[in-house]
Amino acid sequence: MADSSWHELQAVPNPEPGRDYAIDISIPEFTCVCPRTDLPDFGTIRIHYIPGESIIELKSLKYYILNFRQMGIFQEAVTNRILDDIKAAIHPRKIEVVGDFNPRGGIKTVVTAHWPD
Amino acid sequence: MADSSWHELQAVPNPEPGRDYAIDISIPEFTCVCPRTDLPDFGTIRIHYIPGESIIELKSLKYYILNFRQMGIFQEAVTNRILDDIKAAIHPRKIEVVGDFNPRGGIKTVVTAHWPD
Amino acid sequence: MADSSWHELQAVPNPEPGRDYAIDISIPEFTCVCPRTDLPDFGTIRIHYIPGESIIELKSLKYYILNFRQMGIFQEAVTNRILDDIKAAIHPRKIEVVGDFNPRGGIKTVVTAHWPD
Amino acid sequence: MADSSWHELQAVPNPEPGRDYAIDISIPEFTCVCPRTDLPDFGTIRIHYIPGESIIELKSLKYYILNFRQMGIFQEAVTNRILDDIKAAIHPRKIEVVGDFNPRGGIKTVVTAHWPD
Amino acid sequence: MADSSWHELQAVPNPEPGRDYAIDISIPEFTCVCPRTDLPDFGTIRIHYIPGESIIELKSLKYYILNFRQMGIFQEAVTNRILDDIKAAIHPRKIEVVGDFNPRGGIKTVVTAHWPD
Amino acid sequence: MADSSWHELQAVPNPEPGRDYAIDISIPEFTCVCPRTDLPDFGTIRIHYIPGESIIELKSLKYYILNFRQMGIFQEAVTNRILDDIKAAIHPRKIEVVGDFNPRGGIKTVVTAHWPD
Amino acid sequence: MADSSWHELQAVPNPEPGRDYAIDISIPEFTCVCPRTDLPDFGTIRIHYIPGESIIELKSLKYYILNFRQMGIFQEAVTNRILDDIKAAIHPRKIEVVGDFNPRGGIKTVVTAHWPD
Amino acid sequence: MADSSWHELQAVPNPEPGRDYAIDISIPEFTCVCPRTDLPDFGTIRIHYIPGESIIELKSLKYYILNFRQMGIFQEAVTNRILDDIKAAIHPRKIEVVGDFNPRGGIKTVVTAHWPD
Amino acid sequence: MADSSWHELQAVPNPEPGRDYAIDISIPEFTCVCPRTDLPDFGTIRIHYIPGESIIELKSLKYYILNFRQMGIFQEAVTNRILDDIKAAIHPRKIEVVGDFNPRGGIKTVVTAHWPD
Amino acid sequence: MADSSWHELQAVPNPEPGRDYAIDISIPEFTCVCPRTDLPDFGTIRIHYIPGESIIELKSLKYYILNFRQMGIFQEAVTNRILDDIKAAIHPRKIEVVGDFNPRGGIKTVVTAHWPD
Repeated sequence: MADSSWHELQAVPNPEPGRDYAIDISIPEFTCVCPRTDLPDFGTIRIHYIPGESIIELKSLKYYILNFRQMGIFQEAVTNRILDDIKAAIHPRKIEVVGDFNPRGGIKTVVTAHWPD
Repeated sequence: MADSSWHELQAVPNPEPGRDYAIDISIPEFTCVCPRTDLPDFGTIRIHYIPGESIIELKSLKYYILNFRQMGIFQEAVTNRILDDIKAAIHPRKIEVVGDFNPRGGIKTVVTAHWPD
Repeated sequence: MADSSWHELQAVPNPEPGRDYAIDISIPEFTCVCPRTDLPDFGTIRIHYIPGESIIELKSLKYYILNFRQMGIFQEAVTNRILDDIKAAIHPRKIEVVGDFNPRGGIKTVVTAHWPD
Repeated sequence: MADSSWHELQAVPNPEPGRDYAIDISIPEFTCVCPRTDLPDFGTIRIHYIPGESIIELKSLKYYILNFRQMGIFQEAVTNRILDDIKAAIHPRKIEVVGDFNPRGGIKTVVTAHWPD
Repeated sequence: MADSSWHELQAVPNPEPGRDYAIDISIPEFTCVCPRTDLPDFGTIRIHYIPGESIIELKSLKYYILNFRQMGIFQEAVTNRILDDIKAAIHPRKIEVVGDFNPRGGIKTVVTAHWPD
Repeated sequence: MADSSWHELQAVPNPEPGRDYAIDISIPEFTCVCPRTDLPDFGTIRIHYIPGESIIELKSLKYYILNFRQMGIFQEAVTNRILDDIKAAIHPRKIEVVGDFNPRGGIKTVVTAHWPD
Repeated sequence: MADSSWHELQAVPNPEPGRDYAIDISIPEFTCVCPRTDLPDFGTIRIHYIPGESIIELKSLKYYILNFRQMGIFQEAVTNRILDDIKAAIHPRKIEVVGDFNPRGGIKTVVTAHWPD
Repeated sequence: MADSSWHELQAVPNPEPGRDYAIDISIPEFTCVCPRTDLPDFGTIRIHYIPGESIIELKSLKYYILNFRQMGIFQEAVTNRILDDIKAAIHPRKIEVVGDFNPRGGIKTVVTAHWPD
Repeated sequence: MADSSWHELQAVPNPEPGRDYAIDISIPEFTCVCPRTDLPDFGTIRIHYIPGESIIELKSLKYYILNFRQMGIFQEAVTNRILDDIKAAIHPRKIEVVGDFNPRGGIKTVVTAHWPD
Repeated sequence: MADSSWHELQAVPNPEPGRDYAIDISIPEFTCVCPRTDLPDFGTIRIHYIPGESIIELKSLKYYILNFRQMGIFQEAVTNRILDDIKAAIHPRKIEVVGDFNPRGGIKTVVTAHWPD
């Protein structure tokens, strides 16, 4: 992980663009850094979407997630950012992103953002 | 915990005020005191809300919850009070508070309040 | 339990009568007697209600449930009776009572009654 | 089980015919015989119904279920037949029967029939 | 498994064509090959359908699933293909196919397709 | 349960007295009465034994357990008493009785007695 | 299951007779008939053994288990009988048979026999 | 909980002093205060002992546990202290005390002390 | 998977040869083919070993396991063979291999082999 | 996490050095980097020890664990290294360290090292 350059999400063509079907992706090994405490946060990112012309290329998603490993970012912000980045990369018909974070100080937080509202 | 002054909830600006998204918070280590028996009650407080201009600052929430540790208050009352206090502090678009209490005398109680009705 | 007199449900004022909120009560140690076999039945009684002017006083509920310990009564009848007794005692806005009984002879029964229909 | 005569379902009067309430019955020890392989099938039969003037007498249900123990019958057929037999015996307002069968050859089947459609 | 010819799905007549009922099939031992890595994928295929004039013959389904054991095919494609093949074989009133795949590289994918949309 | 006479444990001959084998019995619906509070206690009684010449007749055990339903007796005492009563009735080679009681006042108790020590 | 003749256990040569290794077999769909009530018993039979020169042929075991489907036999007796039949058929170095039966009348029984004692 | 005086453990006579039997007590609602952070710790205290002439009176144990609710004390220290206090109160033949604490900062600690060593 | 050549297990030097420590490996996606039915078997292979001078290189293990995907081999044989192949490749101080196979025909088998006996 | 200097483990005096008691620590949010793939590994580190004169200061342990977040190190090596580092820091009477890692490529590894052997 010496290479600290940004990993972009890649789009690949949807094999069934004529059908409204759902893709649910779960990433249980998400980690970023809390900007207030400089300590790591851990959690699961879940992505639910109805693809349009493209789907997310999964290997690029694996590397994209690594972008956050050393980044200081709040839980509400990172969940909304992942939603925005996927929207920009593949233009889904619908998308929901859930950031389900491990408890900190006896408090557990889950952030759920979707588009369109 | 020598300091018995009241801990206020703090609001911080919502990083995504233009989007209707949900924040779910779970506090499994809630405890207060039953006014009838003077014995402690234990339970989980769950908060679900759609933020407006502000979100709850989580560290202030951790201390706010400590306010109830030695307070004598009924389960129905404390659940409704937490709803009212968060509403006053951050003016959410929607909010639900659940008080899920451990059994007492073989009876388990869950109180669910939301706003708007 | 020498005292075999009937224990009445008590009502106490609802601390938040202006808000439609829910109270869920679970009593996992319910037991009565099957009138056909004279053998005990065991199960969980669950009560879900939206209070009006009053809520159920929980200690009186604990004793009310003991009324059935030696009573011969069918599972369908006792579930409906608890609904009727609570309705009469506290006049809730809505109420549902579930009798979830342990299997007998390889058959498990759950009875669910609510008001209004 | 020398007696191989047919066991009929019995109806008993509904103690609360004026109220629309639900009775859910679960029979986890169902077994019949696959007509293709002559080997036994195992599964759980679940019955959900809103009674009319009558309810199912549970002891007769226990014996009725034994009718299928040595009978060769397909999973789709037995689920629909139990629905038809109960409908004929007690004329419920609504009924659903689920046949949830154990896997065979790495394939698990659940059949769900209800009336009215 | 020396015989590498294609196994066709077989249809058998629906024993209850006059009733709208559901058949849910779960195949937890599905495996195919990822075309990118040449390594096997594992997962569960779930099929939910309302039959029309025909139902799926389960033994032919068991062999049909073996067609994919050595086939290189993406997860999105195989889920959609199973939906299309069953639709062509039995003309159901409604059908949903779920491909629930084991994690790869810390990422789990579930694909859900249904017809009609 | 009008009949409040004492139900004795019955012994039946061990079908395999020449072999040291184990019989484990679990009774999850045990209830008696706490002598201090006059309120019911609930729990599971587990019996593990190596039979000698006799085994416990299970129907008599079901009725024997009913003896405690209205009896005021402490948890430590009832566990030891069941051990003594079974020992007297069937003279097992070894026996252990566990009284695993539901929590009261936030405290759960399990009592384990065996013979020989 | 028209054929009611007895199905014998078959032995096949142990592929590794020079090594002391264990084979554990679990049959969760066992059923026989209670001689007292003429009603079916259900349970799981578990077999743990160290093979000698032979191992159990699993298809013959599947049919051997069917022998008990309509047989009236007590739980203690059937567990010991399966142990004796396997011992006679394959002469294992060690064997344990567990009959883990579903509850009847609120009482669950597990019988464990092994050889040598 | 206005009364902040110390609650002593009470001993009551062992009903079966002639038999070596075990009493296991579990207190899942333990809370004290971390002396370093002044924030509450939560956890479960488990006590396993073989009584001598006395057993712990459970109501006094419930109040004894409340002594720690506002006390600043480390997890290792409180576990050992409970062991010492029970030893002094009832002189058991053997005792083990486990302090099983909820995670703090992503680290969970369990402390197990017993006597004699 | 066009390449059907045999994948050998690779050994790499043990980083801590001076210490007796354990490595437990679990492979939940094992599949081979039953020689009797030509149908696939699925299961989990578990390997527990104390390494000597070498440890198993995990990537080579992943490919070694693929050798069995199209091989007809009995469950007892494949478990013992994996034990023998690992022993030959890395000369562990101790090793146990468990083949935990999915049920077939209502019968589940677990094979456990270890060395030295 | 700008500060990339090494975080040392701190020892604090054992509050009960005269008693052999156990401390079990579980760290479910461990992450390091695989030297072969440059991708992160995730897992749980469990530490079981009998303290001598010192115990591990938990806050220093939290920071010590962060040392590995960006370090390339094999699973066998990191488990043994944590054992060695704790041994050097607190000189326990006994210690075991378990590295329980999330699956990679369908293979899960658990490494268990203890001292003395």
